[in-house]
Amino acid sequence: MLYLVGLGLSNEKDITVAGLEIVKKCARVYLEAYTSILMIDKAKLEEFYGREVIIADREMVESSSDEILSGAGSTDVAFLVVGDPFGATTHTDLLLRARELAIPFRTIHNASIMNAIGACGLQLYNFGQTVSMVFFTENWRPASFYDRIKENRDVGLHTLVLLDIKVKEQSLENMARGRRVYEPPRYMTVAQCAQQMLEIEEEKGEAAYSPTTLAIGVSRLGSEDQQFVAGTLKQLSEADLGPPLHSLVLLGKRVHELEIDYIRPFAVDVEEFNRAYELEHGKKAA
Amino acid sequence: MLYLVGLGLSNEKDITVAGLEIVKKCARVYLEAYTSILMIDKAKLEEFYGREVIIADREMVESSSDEILSGAGSTDVAFLVVGDPFGATTHTDLLLRARELAIPFRTIHNASIMNAIGACGLQLYNFGQTVSMVFFTENWRPASFYDRIKENRDVGLHTLVLLDIKVKEQSLENMARGRRVYEPPRYMTVAQCAQQMLEIEEEKGEAAYSPTTLAIGVSRLGSEDQQFVAGTLKQLSEADLGPPLHSLVLLGKRVHELEIDYIRPFAVDVEEFNRAYELEHGKKAA
Repeated sequence: MLYLVGLGLSNEKDITVAGLEIVKKCARVYLEAYTSILMIDKAKLEEFYGREVIIADREMVESSSDEILSGAGSTDVAFLVVGDPFGATTHTDLLLRARELAIPFRTIHNASIMNAIGACGLQLYNFGQTVSMVFFTENWRPASFYDRIKENRDVGLHTLVLLDIKVKEQSLENMARGRRVYEPPRYMTVAQCAQQMLEIEEEKGEAAYSPTTLAIGVSRLGSEDQQFVAGTLKQLSEADLGPPLHSLVLLGKRVHELEIDYIRPFAVDVEEFNRAYELEHGKKAA
Repeated sequence: MLYLVGLGLSNEKDITVAGLEIVKKCARVYLEAYTSILMIDKAKLEEFYGREVIIADREMVESSSDEILSGAGSTDVAFLVVGDPFGATTHTDLLLRARELAIPFRTIHNASIMNAIGACGLQLYNFGQTVSMVFFTENWRPASFYDRIKENRDVGLHTLVLLDIKVKEQSLENMARGRRVYEPPRYMTVAQCAQQMLEIEEEKGEAAYSPTTLAIGVSRLGSEDQQFVAGTLKQLSEADLGPPLHSLVLLGKRVHELEIDYIRPFAVDVEEFNRAYELEHGKKAA
């Protein structure tokens, strides 16, 4: 059996009791380590599980999936994923391959950013599609997020923006020379995300949002020192939310006053927050 | 400290290791029991936790929240929620009250239908807003879901439809006489949901969807006997997905062929599935 086990958001104890029982009994334990990161290291996981953990990077999952699946017809193999196994990446290709090989699989679900983001105080019902924001470079400024945010905002919905993570990245020089030398990991901050959003709005000018649109910056969601900072995009473009991981939620119009009451204490500046709320939502903040 | 602890989707072992440690040490343990249900009973939870579990129904949470919060400034109180504490209901009012009383709180997240639905094979990125479907009565057929589904479908997004649960429901007669006698719980099925959707489309006629629109019926998500059934709304209006809980996903146009490959084995009828896919998505199914 192949078990896809979600690890949740923060540390080794965020695994479920069922998940832990499975990991402890599996013959091999892989950790998917390219679409997200846990806030703790592999050694700590290994100690907690009492098992060796094999890091599965993108190369391995995409080109050596048979290695992961090897023997899973007769023995148990665990494939650990930070968050939920069907969160940001669905691993459909791995599961399709398992099906081809007639290997049964089971999923142990867990929290992911896609549902835990509700902790910011906005109802999940009123979120539209989720978008991703990648690090811009001089020549590459992918802006497909813009149209999607506009689709959400046009009907009043909030948008969860997931921020880029660069792990196992090669410099152009190292890549050209075929050297397997990797750059230190990079994690996009809320401030970088807000800046890039404002740049693209300036370029496109379709008023999907503006510097005074309210947003919530989120860091280390699910950990004991998680942080929420509410403010205009302009304010968030200068905010410091500390260590990774960061995410951002752009507010839509469909927001209840109770939700605003809940969010207000997170404001960088309460007066500015109330002003921005009135401006966009046409209601006087309480 | 008030701990909001998500229980996950299916049974007592879906709690996280961190969540279980907290429950075991809390002075009082409440179980929120009106917006969702766990597939196991209270006695089993109590045995697993080694603690008494107090059922908190809607009345209690809404009008006696101070009772729940009593003493939580100096001792630990757990408030257990099936799924994630910020899933379908955010409990914002309870948390606002905790803030007023200067009671600190922490959330232990878990899977909820809002993210675990990714297990049907569709990317969570391409889901729009989530809608709810309630049991229609002769005089009450709330159809606000229709416009929201249309908003999602107009831009190509999928829609998760959460189905009504009636627990602790009084008959009109018992309510009028003030008798606290409750009807047996009722859970909407995928077939009932699909029927109601088709009725409303027939009434409104705005082509938000049609009897040949593809959808996925989901039952007992996260449990060992979870089930996915794919087909047209017409087919699903006649499908039997067994015991509760059920949900439904209405497909949008933004779907990748890999996702369709993953879903096809769930089809009631593969030929009909391929035909419906071609019709709506303008592509020949592989």
